Formats: sequence, C-alpha cells, structure tokens
Amino acid sequence: MKEINKKLLENPEVFDFTVDSLGPRNIPSPVKDRTFVEDEERVLFHSSLSEIQQLVTEGKSLPSFEKGGPREKIFHDPCWTRAAIVTCGGLCPGLNDVIKGLVKVLHFDYGVSNIFGIKYGYRGLIPEYGYSPIALDPDVVDTIHADGGTILGSSRGEQDISDMVDTLQRLNINMLFCVGGDGTLSGAKRIAEEIIDRKQPITVIGVPKTIDNDLSFIDRTFGFETAVYASSPIITCAHNEAKGAERGIGLVKLMGRDSGFVAASASLSNSIVNYCLIPEVEFEFEGPNGLLKALENRFAIGKDHAVIVVAEGAGQNLFKGEEEKRDKSGNILKHDIGIYLKEKIKEHFNNTGNPQDEVTVKYFDPSYMIRSVPAEGTDAIFCFTLAEYAVHAAMAGKTNMVVGYWNNQYTHLPISLATMKRRKIDTEGTLWHSVLGATRQNDYFENN
Amino acid sequence: MKEINKKLLENPEVFDFTVDSLGPRNIPSPVKDRTFVEDEERVLFHSSLSEIQQLVTEGKSLPSFEKGGPREKIFHDPCWTRAAIVTCGGLCPGLNDVIKGLVKVLHFDYGVSNIFGIKYGYRGLIPEYGYSPIALDPDVVDTIHADGGTILGSSRGEQDISDMVDTLQRLNINMLFCVGGDGTLSGAKRIAEEIIDRKQPITVIGVPKTIDNDLSFIDRTFGFETAVYASSPIITCAHNEAKGAERGIGLVKLMGRDSGFVAASASLSNSIVNYCLIPEVEFEFEGPNGLLKALENRFAIGKDHAVIVVAEGAGQNLFKGEEEKRDKSGNILKHDIGIYLKEKIKEHFNNTGNPQDEVTVKYFDPSYMIRSVPAEGTDAIFCFTLAEYAVHAAMAGKTNMVVGYWNNQYTHLPISLATMKRRKIDTEGTLWHSVLGATRQNDYFENN
Amino acid sequence: MKEINKKLLENPEVFDFTVDSLGPRNIPSPVKDRTFVEDEERVLFHSSLSEIQQLVTEGKSLPSFEKGGPREKIFHDPCWTRAAIVTCGGLCPGLNDVIKGLVKVLHFDYGVSNIFGIKYGYRGLIPEYGYSPIALDPDVVDTIHADGGTILGSSRGEQDISDMVDTLQRLNINMLFCVGGDGTLSGAKRIAEEIIDRKQPITVIGVPKTIDNDLSFIDRTFGFETAVYASSPIITCAHNEAKGAERGIGLVKLMGRDSGFVAASASLSNSIVNYCLIPEVEFEFEGPNGLLKALENRFAIGKDHAVIVVAEGAGQNLFKGEEEKRDKSGNILKHDIGIYLKEKIKEHFNNTGNPQDEVTVKYFDPSYMIRSVPAEGTDAIFCFTLAEYAVHAAMAGKTNMVVGYWNNQYTHLPISLATMKRRKIDTEGTLWHSVLGATRQNDYFENN
Amino acid sequence: MKEINKKLLENPEVFDFTVDSLGPRNIPSPVKDRTFVEDEERVLFHSSLSEIQQLVTEGKSLPSFEKGGPREKIFHDPCWTRAAIVTCGGLCPGLNDVIKGLVKVLHFDYGVSNIFGIKYGYRGLIPEYGYSPIALDPDVVDTIHADGGTILGSSRGEQDISDMVDTLQRLNINMLFCVGGDGTLSGAKRIAEEIIDRKQPITVIGVPKTIDNDLSFIDRTFGFETAVYASSPIITCAHNEAKGAERGIGLVKLMGRDSGFVAASASLSNSIVNYCLIPEVEFEFEGPNGLLKALENRFAIGKDHAVIVVAEGAGQNLFKGEEEKRDKSGNILKHDIGIYLKEKIKEHFNNTGNPQDEVTVKYFDPSYMIRSVPAEGTDAIFCFTLAEYAVHAAMAGKTNMVVGYWNNQYTHLPISLATMKRRKIDTEGTLWHSVLGATRQNDYFENN
Repeated sequence: MKEINKKLLENPEVFDFTVDSLGPRNIPSPVKDRTFVEDEERVLFHSSLSEIQQLVTEGKSLPSFEKGGPREKIFHDPCWTRAAIVTCGGLCPGLNDVIKGLVKVLHFDYGVSNIFGIKYGYRGLIPEYGYSPIALDPDVVDTIHADGGTILGSSRGEQDISDMVDTLQRLNINMLFCVGGDGTLSGAKRIAEEIIDRKQPITVIGVPKTIDNDLSFIDRTFGFETAVYASSPIITCAHNEAKGAERGIGLVKLMGRDSGFVAASASLSNSIVNYCLIPEVEFEFEGPNGLLKALENRFAIGKDHAVIVVAEGAGQNLFKGEEEKRDKSGNILKHDIGIYLKEKIKEHFNNTGNPQDEVTVKYFDPSYMIRSVPAEGTDAIFCFTLAEYAVHAAMAGKTNMVVGYWNNQYTHLPISLATMKRRKIDTEGTLWHSVLGATRQNDYFENN
Repeated sequence: MKEINKKLLENPEVFDFTVDSLGPRNIPSPVKDRTFVEDEERVLFHSSLSEIQQLVTEGKSLPSFEKGGPREKIFHDPCWTRAAIVTCGGLCPGLNDVIKGLVKVLHFDYGVSNIFGIKYGYRGLIPEYGYSPIALDPDVVDTIHADGGTILGSSRGEQDISDMVDTLQRLNINMLFCVGGDGTLSGAKRIAEEIIDRKQPITVIGVPKTIDNDLSFIDRTFGFETAVYASSPIITCAHNEAKGAERGIGLVKLMGRDSGFVAASASLSNSIVNYCLIPEVEFEFEGPNGLLKALENRFAIGKDHAVIVVAEGAGQNLFKGEEEKRDKSGNILKHDIGIYLKEKIKEHFNNTGNPQDEVTVKYFDPSYMIRSVPAEGTDAIFCFTLAEYAVHAAMAGKTNMVVGYWNNQYTHLPISLATMKRRKIDTEGTLWHSVLGATRQNDYFENN
Repeated sequence: MKEINKKLLENPEVFDFTVDSLGPRNIPSPVKDRTFVEDEERVLFHSSLSEIQQLVTEGKSLPSFEKGGPREKIFHDPCWTRAAIVTCGGLCPGLNDVIKGLVKVLHFDYGVSNIFGIKYGYRGLIPEYGYSPIALDPDVVDTIHADGGTILGSSRGEQDISDMVDTLQRLNINMLFCVGGDGTLSGAKRIAEEIIDRKQPITVIGVPKTIDNDLSFIDRTFGFETAVYASSPIITCAHNEAKGAERGIGLVKLMGRDSGFVAASASLSNSIVNYCLIPEVEFEFEGPNGLLKALENRFAIGKDHAVIVVAEGAGQNLFKGEEEKRDKSGNILKHDIGIYLKEKIKEHFNNTGNPQDEVTVKYFDPSYMIRSVPAEGTDAIFCFTLAEYAVHAAMAGKTNMVVGYWNNQYTHLPISLATMKRRKIDTEGTLWHSVLGATRQNDYFENN
Repeated sequence: MKEINKKLLENPEVFDFTVDSLGPRNIPSPVKDRTFVEDEERVLFHSSLSEIQQLVTEGKSLPSFEKGGPREKIFHDPCWTRAAIVTCGGLCPGLNDVIKGLVKVLHFDYGVSNIFGIKYGYRGLIPEYGYSPIALDPDVVDTIHADGGTILGSSRGEQDISDMVDTLQRLNINMLFCVGGDGTLSGAKRIAEEIIDRKQPITVIGVPKTIDNDLSFIDRTFGFETAVYASSPIITCAHNEAKGAERGIGLVKLMGRDSGFVAASASLSNSIVNYCLIPEVEFEFEGPNGLLKALENRFAIGKDHAVIVVAEGAGQNLFKGEEEKRDKSGNILKHDIGIYLKEKIKEHFNNTGNPQDEVTVKYFDPSYMIRSVPAEGTDAIFCFTLAEYAVHAAMAGKTNMVVGYWNNQYTHLPISLATMKRRKIDTEGTLWHSVLGATRQNDYFENN
C-alpha cells in the first residue's frame, strides 16, 4: 500500500483506473427511489490532505475510482437480459449471500427473470463436463444466506476461454458474474477480452473473493470479517489445550498465503495469543533470534504455556532449497509451515533426554471449518451490497471490471488493477503494532 | 450526512475541526517500531473527486480531521502519569476491550504504571458515593475481553463538574478517559473546559460509545458490529415463532433512538424480515397507507406470517399529543413503540369477531441480551485500536476531544463536533434501498 | 415422584399400565436388522433393590411399563397406511426433529408412502378453518431438523372431537401422531376413545411435549435439554447487566408453570445465579424471611449485584386474593411473577429517599427465544428416537398411548397415566440441593 | 452390554459389586436439608421385568449397585480433612465443572477448608517434577466452569505408586479425587490398594472420564453430551465443503477408540451424514462390499456429494500386518483411519485417468476443538452432581471406587468393575438402527 501510494503520488498516470463499457446507454433504468449516480462521480484514491494538496500544487490529476451505483440510463434491456452467475475456487463465507443478492436485485430492481447458476465454477461452462445451468429466482435463493458454502458448487483451475465464450453465446447469456479470487478474475478478464474481440454485447463483472483480504485497491473483501469471527473460538481451544499440559503449546494455522491479515486480526481479536507469525515478517526458527529460543525464553520466565498463530504463508524462508510445487492453476504451493513447526518444535524439545524440557504440542488446522461457515452480521450485509453494485454495473453495460470498496464507497475498477498486486500488512502500522502490543512477542525474541 | 456534506462544501468554515492541546510537547516518545504521525497530517473529510475539485476551484480550504497516531514528542511524562478510566451509560459490547486496550497500551507502549478504574461512571468521581478507584494493570485486564459488560461498572446521569475536577486533582490524575455516549461526552467536554479554566495539566479524551452508530463525523462506533451479529439469531427466533402460528407475527424491537442503523442492518443481515421500521421513515399505523393495512395486504396474498423489526425510536409520530417524559440525564424518553405495536395489532385483528382474522403476535425485546455480550472479531479489534489511539492522543497532551474513525483512518475531533448532530440513514442511499430490496415491504404499503 | 413411588409400593394395582390395542397383529414387519420386542417385555417402574424385594416378599406384582420397539408382526398394512402428524401448543425445541423422524421411519423402515402433515394443530382437522394437509416425504423433511419451530404450524385450544374424527375418516387416515402437551394429549385420548367407539382401525399415538419436563411417568421430555442449554447465555447476560450497575439486579424469568426443572437446571448449569425461585418452594416477598430482605442481606455483606432466576409458576402465593384467569384451553393463567418482582423490587429500593438504597433492575423474559431454537446434540437424537418408537407402536396397532422413556428405555404408556399428575422437583433431592449449593441462597434468607 | 447382561442373569456372583470402606463411621454429617442414604439402599442392575422375575424364580440374588448420596454418619472429620484433586489424561469437557463441584461441596456442605489441586496429573504427586499443589477454595473456582480445559493441568502416563502414596502421606492428604480414564483409574486402584496395605486412613475416589462414553456399568460419562453438541457444526462444515465441490467428500474423524458412541450420536444429531463408520462394525475398503464401491454406488445414482463420519477406532482391520505401536501408558495406538481414508480415497478416484471420476476430499480432524470446550447445559449439571456424590462417598470413607450413574441414579462401584470391559454399541439396538435409518448407508453397500 505504501509503495502504491508513493507511486500514485509521484506518477498517477502509471495506473489506469478506466473501466470498460460495452457501449452507449439508452434504456431508462427501472430502479425506483434511488439517487442515480453519474459516471463522472468518482471516489478519491487518496484520503490524506497533504497528498491531495501536493498533487494539486504540482498540477497532477487526482487518482480516483469510478463510483458504483445505479445509472439513470442502462445498456441492457431487462426483458432480454439473461444473466449467469459462477462461483470459483475454495469456499469463502458469503458466497450464498452474494448469489442471493445478485438474484434479488436483478429480479426485483430490474425485472430480470432469466437468471442462471453455472455449476462447479468455470467447468460448468465447458460442455464436456456435462453440467446444466440451474434456474435461479428469489424463491430458490430465499434462505440460502443461512447456509455456508455455495449452492452452485465450485471448482479450481483454468478452462479454455474460447469454449466458455462459445457456451455463453450458445446459451444467449449477456451478463456473467464471476465470483472468485485471483485466478478466477484473470479468467474473467480473458473472457471479457475475448467477448470484446468477438464484438458481443456480453458483460463480465467480477466479485472479488479472497478470505485473505489482500487486494491492493480494495479496502475489504467479503468473508474476511466472518473468518476473523470464526477463528476466535479455535484460538480459545488452543489456549485451553496449551494450559492443560506441562509446557503446552497450542499451534493454530490460519489462512493467509501472502498476507497475514487473518492471522493478525484473529490474534488481536482474541488476545490470548503469544506468537503471531505472518508472511510479512520473516522469522528464524533456530539460532539466538529464532522461534525455538523465543519459546525457551518464555518458558524460562515461568510461563507454563504458549499459543502460536501462524499464517499459512509465513516462514517460507525456512524451506529454502526445497523443491517448488504448483497447483492446478499454476500457483506456487506453499510449504506447510504448520506441520513443519509442529514436528520441529517437538523434535527440538522432546529429544534432549531431559524430561523437564519436554513440551506438548497440540496442532489446529481449521481452514475448512472457517471457509465453510455462512457470513454473518455486517459481513452478510457487505455481500448483499457488493452484489447489488455488481448488478448496477452490469445493467449499465460495464465490463471487464470488479466491484470494489474504497473509503466506505462502492467502486468500479478494471480487473487488471484489482489483481495487480497483493496488499500486505504494513509492519509499521496500527494493525501489526497492536498485534505486537497484544502478544508482547518481541519480548521473547532476542533481537528485539 | 448529506446535509452536512452540503454545508461543508458551501461553507467549510462553519465547522471547527481544531483539537485542543494542553501545551507544547518536549518529551521523546518511548513508543518503538512505529511511524510517528505529525500534527499536520490530516484526513480529508470529503472522498468525492468532484467535491474536492469544486473546493479547490473556489479556493476554499479542504475540511479535514487531525490524524490520530503516536507523536514523536509527547506532553505527559510517563513516569509521572496517573491515568483514570471511566465508563458511563448503558452497556455496549466492547467496553472491556476498550479498558484492556487502554491499560495495555499505557503500560507497555508508554510505561505508565499508575492506572485507575473509576467505579460506576461519573458517580465514582463524587466522594459522596464512596467508591474507591481500583488499580488496573495488564494482569487485571488480561482476560476481560472475553466477558460482556464493564468491569468498572457504569451509571447514568450528570454529576457536578466542579466536584469531579476536584477529585481528579485530589487523586493527582492527569489523564481521564471517558467512555460513553452523548451525555457522557458533554460531561467530558465540561470537565475538560473546567480543567482548562483551572490551568491544570489534565487531559480529557472521550471514546464515543453509541450502539446506534449515529455520530455524524465518525464512520463507525464500537459495539455496533457485534450488535448486528447478536440481533440475527433473535430475528430467526421471531421468524420461527411467526411461522409456527396461523397468521403469526414476530415483532422485534431493536436499539435505535434517533437512527435506525441497528434495525436496518439486522434486517439486512438476516434477510427474513418483512417490515423494517426506523425513525428516519415515518409511517402511519391505521388508514389505507398504514402498517395494519400493509399486514392485511400481505396476508391477503396468501403469506401466512410476518416478521417486523422496529427501532425503538420509530413511529414516535403515533404518540402525538401524549405527555413527554425525560430520563435522569434530561433526554426525552421515547414512547414504547414495541408495546404499542404489540397491543394495537392484537386489538385490531383479534376483536373483529371473525376468527379468520385472528393473528398471533410474539414480541421480542432483546435489548439487554445484545448490549451485554462481549465484542467479537473485527469489532473487538476496533475497540482495542480505538483505545490505542486514545492513549496516543492523551500522551500527546490533546484534550477535549474524542477518537474518531473516518475513511479507514483514526482521527481526532473536538467533542463539540462529535456530539453536534446525529447521523441518520440516508433513505435514498444503499443501506435503506437494500433493506427495501430484501424486505420488499413497499409492495405491501398502498402508497408505494 | 416420592408420593407416586410410595403408592406404587403399597398398592400397585391403583395404576393401570395397560396399553390399548386395535386388534391382533398378522402382518410380518418389514423392519430389518433389528431385534424385535415382544409385548411381554416390560420395563420395571422401580429401580431400587429394596422396593423390589418388598413387593416380591409381599407377593405383589411388580409395576412395569410395556417396552417400546419394533414388533415382529404388525397390525397396519404399510401399503394401505395413511399416516398424519399434528403438532399443537407452544413451540418447543425438537418439533421438526420429531416430524422428520416420523416421516423417515415410516417411509424407510415400513415403506409407508402416504404421510400427511396437519396444519396448525387440531384446527387443521376442522374443515371450517380451511387448511389442507400437506404431503410429507423424506425429501421434504431432509433438512428441517436444522430449523426451530414446526413446519406444520401449531395452535392452541380444543376442537370438536367428533368433527376431527370425521375428518380422519374422510381422509382415510389410519394413523394419527399427536405431538403436544397436556391439553393436546387429553384431546388425543378423546379422539382415540371416539375412534374405538366408532370401531375404526385408526391408531392414535401421542408424543408428549413439555419443555418443563414435568411428566410423572416419563424421565425426560424432548426439548428440555436444549432449553437448559439455551438459557445459559441469557443468564450470563443478566449477570453482566447486574455487575454493570450499582446494586444491579439481573432478573430472568424462565419456563416452568408447575415445576421448576428448567429454572433449577439452568441455574445449576450456569452457576452464577444467586437466587433461584421455583413453584415447589413457596417464598415470601416482604418480611424478615422475604426475598427483599434476602437481597438486602446480600448487599449488606458487600456483594454489589444479584442474579435472580424465577420460574413462571413460582411465587403464585403472592397473588392471593387476585382474580383468576384462564386461557383458551381452560388452564388457569399464572400471574406474571416476573413483572411483579421487577416492579416491586424497584418500588421497594428506589423509593426510600436514600440514593444509597437504589437498585437497577434489568428484566429478561426470553421464553420465545428458547422455545423457538432447534433441538441440538443429544436432544435431537432423543427426538428422532422418540419418533421411531412412536412409529413402531403405531404400526403395531397400539392406540390411546404415548411414547415414554424410563430408565434409559423407551416405553408405552396410556395417555391417562402420562397426564395424571405433574412431576415436581424433590426439594430434598439432588437437583434442588445442588442448586442451593451453587447459589448459596439460603445464606441470605433469614429463616435458613 | 448384552453379554454382561447375559452373564449377570446366569451367574450374578461373577461380578463383585462390593465397595471398599476405610472403616466404621461415627461422625455426624454436617449436611443439611437432605434425605440421607443408607448403605443398604441399592440400585438394581436390571430394569427388565422378565429378567428380575427369572432371577427371583431361580432363587438367585439380584445384582445391584450401592446407591450414592450423603450418609448420616461419616468417616472423615471435616476439620481434619485435607482433600486433593488430580486430573489426568486428555482434555474432556467438564473437568473444571467437576473441580468446582468438588470444592464447593467440600467447602459448603462439609466445611472442609483444606483443599488442594495437584498440578499436571499424577506427575504432580512425584516430587522430582517439582510442582507444588495449589490451594483451592470457592472463590478460586467461582467462574472456572465457563472455561474449557482444566485449571490443574493434566498429563499422561503412569507414575510410581509408592512415591505417590509417600507424597500423600507427607502432605497429610486423607482424600484423593482422581478424575481420569482407564489408565488413571487403574492407577487410582493401585494407589488405594497400597494405602490399604499401609493401613492409612486415606480415601481414593475416582470420577470416570471418557469422552467416548464406553464404560460397561455406567450409563453416561461427563463430557460426552457436550462432545456430541460440539461435533454438529463441524459436520455441517464438512457437508458444505462436500456440496461445494464436484463429487465432494467431507470426511470427519471423531473420537471413539473402541466404541463409536460419539461418531454414531453426532451422525444422528446432525443427520446429514451419509456414512458413519464405527469400531463395532467392521467394513471393507476395497472389493464389491467395500467403502469405495459404496461411494461409487452413491455417485452412480446421481448424488453429488458424500459426508463420512469415522470413529478413530474404526476400520482397524484394514491395517492388518502393520506394526503395532503403543503410547506412554502402554495402550495400543490406533492406526490413523482418518488419514488412511483421505489418502486412499483420493488415490482410488483421482488416478483413473478419467477426470469424470475425480473426487475432492476435505478432511476434518476436530478432536482438540471438541475436547477443549467447556461443558454446557445438562452436561455441566451432570459434572457438578457427579462431583457432589464423589464428595459424599469420600466423606463416608468409601475408597477404591468410582462414582457411577445407572438408571438415573448415582452409584458407587469398585474401580475394578468400572474398568473391566468397554461398553460397545449394540448393533441391533436403537442407536445404531437409527443411525442406519438416518444415513441410509446400507443402501450403498452391496451386501446389504
């Protein structure tokens, strides 16, 4: 973020905030009781007075996002609109809320009655897999918000872009909502571009899904808030197990491939964590500054237990020299830091020959128990609202974009921008400083 | 908000964003590993590009908040600092998190070791009540975040300002944190002003507490998010009860004296609500456009039940002509709309002589069951962080201010600004429109 | 119970444990992989060695229940069976589990494919109300166990017996499952007797529903366990509210018209309750032995709060002389002890003119929030199994009986026996003694 | 159970139900307001009328348990009593409730003021480990029931009996409460016997702890009920994950080394499970009757997902020929059936070369998340009451026994009887039949 901020101050033109459109909008919107939003309304990227003043002084443009919301004139004729929804990748709280939101807003606000759910991610757009779309209406989705998972099913991996566009054309779909993460959105981008090449009036709108909450130009992604809520009782269990044994260590692996937002937030929300390890902060395992020594230091001052929360992407430096593996989508697979810590900590303390050194490690890997719960409370609202803005954008004929959220406002941004760079925890900022304050972990690391 | 926005565009000078200070800061901050914040760093009030451009073009100043955060030089010497914390008014999720956060940050980041908890709100500052302050340290507050309520106790009502300042001086307190709502903050303001008059080096910092989330210059208040989460299962109960009876009506009264944020958000987060009634939208009870008719309309199309969520401040127009009552703090007491609706709906449907008209009303008034739960997840984090920024402000010698939150940044704002005007739901905005979309309630009201 | 025990020891013949049957059983049961139960298998009423020895010595018969379970030969031909299910009275956790269990066992174990749900209790059997039965099958009930309430709806009050039997005959129903409390079961008994008079081959089986768990010849009723679980967090809220105010009193009214099992169990399961008031133990309100004095005594020793749990049927002696009211079913309506205590406690302490005497009372009446939740865990299993035994009994042609549970075994008992007398808490037994031990409430009452 | 039942009918003398005592009881009990229990009061083992009649006819004795409860005269003088509590083995919901119950009843009912907690299981009784006992009183244990785990800590493995008895004597302990499973109780037995040999007036009472609920002469063990409750949401997560993927399989390993009560009960309480695998029912993995084929059969009829719940002790026959491992206490370690199924199912379906065959397996191993939660509701009450009866037995000078529960009554039984034989699920009984009815799993296995 800081890096991006700096670039945007120095050279705002580097980033292209312009959203693609299928064409001019002539149809009056059927949406009632709403203040319509003009395309010219934009949300400032910067929120700092001095940064704005600097740009103004230097005569530079002020970087900004297109503002989301209903347009007075729309592109797609509701009567002829056939919308499709696809959910891809791993589960995330709120998928069903997004589906429900899309269906209700399409149906009630715009009067769209042809809405289809694509089964099992992009595979559902490939005829060979043999999945038929399912018809969606407000009755079908009425209570799905109370269930975790996705009623459409999901899958991982890429599919042939051309084949998928063929399917959309064959089904007369003119509006595709893609709910998914990086890989999914890259796919959506290529679908949108292929459609533009074919000069088809098909809108492609992404709803970004990352439980890690790590998108650079989006303040918040759906499911993250629920993930933090759901992590808390598991940390309490780890604490109870740790307290229940001599030199007990409760070790919890949480989501976070490249960014530690879930691990840091969970550690702060249930502040009985003693060590929080995230990808943004490299740590040693052995040696005078290592984690083992930090654990020894804690035991040495008479503390009888320890709770460690580790993000799945943390400590990858410890695997240097090991072979790199990739998943179906070509992503580098992270080495399993949870299992590594569990085994190596046991090995270190329990093989000294001195029973006094022995520790008991209880390992928790709750990922699926967090991803599969329903979104609740304000997170559920966020899902519904994201879906609403996705529909407004789609009906207006926007394409190749995702719905974002910036400074409490819903925005449109090109897919390319959304997937450009991952957001990281600012290790000199509030969140991480609060985590350090709550855990006091640096008291145990020698070099701090 | 819209109104305030407009005023700030036309005449930014109307609002005074300047925060009071006790004096120059000479002491180097002991805070480590943080980027310090300069007083000149400010957070823009506006986030819309066009509004900013208009102000720039017209040569007007850009309204902005002082940015919160640790200062490189501080006013209070940690060694000599004696801090006090007081919690006032009704319970709200997160009070204990705020207390824990204040104590931990004072203790660990600044090395302040004299921290006191004032018992039972402002009464604890009046000697006649006979309450001694209790000593607080990290051990005392270690696990209080897991419990609802406040370990300090609370009370309502005003106390003599001069007496309270006498107590602070007698106890050598030079830093007072007041956690409370409108009345509490008004009290805090008068305490701060009395202290300035007496030329005492005592800092007064408010942490705004309103479960209704209705402060104009603050995006979010602590406890609100948890309140929305906690409301959801109660709405499900109301739904089950309503479905379980012929023409069953589940009626839930939620918090919201002047603004319907809790009621609207809860209705949207658990979208099985059929009517959501808020203070911002007047409604008739009888007559062709009234709620009774809207219920009849729903039953008439074959729906066998109804769930109504009503904010406590909704429908006050129905009590015109009735006597006005005030509470201890002088606030006008709202008429009890929940009981009114319960009784009047029964009266209307069950006295027709026709058994087919009869309804079953199940009434839920869960206020205390929501206020008294602990803050969880991201709401708990928000409490902790608010407390952290309150401490930074206090140590820097700021006073007569509250800690705010604006566009994802923590801010300082004068108490007078924070309590100036309540924020209301924009009935043409996203939240309310989504509620109408989820409930479809206007389909039942004749005039819509 | 003690009274009944004594009577059964002295004169076992007083009680008739014989269950009615429609006739001889000739059809081989299609149930697979089960040990069939003979009608001669019986479950002893007594479990005490000395009581059994006394009866044997005196040559008396040993009172016993017919044992439930699948019979090798059945009465009703599954092909021709048309079953109906009706749920009556207030909600109770587990109603949907019972419905699901009935449907699944009828369908899968016996191959019955005509199963109907009667809407809104006995009213659904009266043509004038105009409710059609709904068809039930395993798919319809597949996930209803996860929802509170009853998918069939319910109602209170009696209906004409003859009309209801007419309906059963008209619909060719030959098996009726009545899930409900005292009034419902009395109705079921009269329906069964009318059917016997009419010489119709229609089975009537009751599944006793009382969240109060107060049936004399049944160890446990469904929903009770969940009610105890659901009460616990509300008591925690009351505790938090009480602790949050000066001399705060958290007052919780729980279910229990004639017996205090829910109140006592909830107080023991979340043992932060200070006073537990139940119908079985009369208490004074004023005077030297009264509750007010007991509260004063608690405050006098420096305790700063109090939590009171009161069963709805407790303290009825305080209303002597007041008018008696009855509900639709003719039951005497209890006076509202919760409101009484709330008002009178406030009146007593807050009108002394001495501010030091003042208390803050927070009142909780969570009845609907407990009744409307789904049954969980072992309670859900209990519901399913009760339903299973109800089906076995029905298919065997038993009638005019309820499914019971005694000494860990499922039993058959005549409706007349089940509704004969309410079970009360033995105030010299374990449960109440444990409650007294947990609350220590007698330390505050003068006469103890 | 059936086997034991049969043996007890044929030859009741085989089993010794007699409980050891330290000596005659002369001290009047200080317990108030309770009906005292005579040692002659006994609880019948059998509850079936015919079984009792057969034994009476044959002139055999009726097997029975000594009934628990307060005795009018006690053995230990409360003034001189020094009690100790030790918790051993893995965590189980309710440990803290038992500790709280023991302390409160000792303190308030008997006036015992010297109560000690032994740290970390039997290790705390071995001086070399260096753990001092901690003093326990009602204030210390006041709120521990709300936390999972054990405030005393725990450990596994045996310690030298003689050393432990030396410690008890050195500390003047005359009452030891051992809360633990098989190994712990065997240890307690040997401690009690050593004490008898040494002619010391020290009571040893066991409180049996097995989350598996698998003791032959005890109907129910504490923590089991909570374990069933806690398993349910995890099964829902597995269901959501399974539904979310093509041919998704949610695989949940639950507790149950020798008996499948937790797995079977959890599958029945949240009846969305498709296969429930328990130790009592051997199953094949491959071949025409195997699990793989059963999964294929399910997919073949168009079901798109499967949820499997497997007890940790199930399927051990699949590991024939593999090496046997033992834990610290000498118990045979079960092979990890969860990992086996996960790996082998993937291997089978995902290596066919046909993408249509592929499955997605999501594996859940929530053991620690279940063991470490607090007991709730009726389970918490059960813990408290068990503790109460343990104290009554201890004060009466009983020893070498455990507190049991049989036919709704609390009993005393010799440790040797309690640990004699594990209880198994009766595969022709109600529980298992209901599980088969809920899962319909035999429809998928060829041989059924």
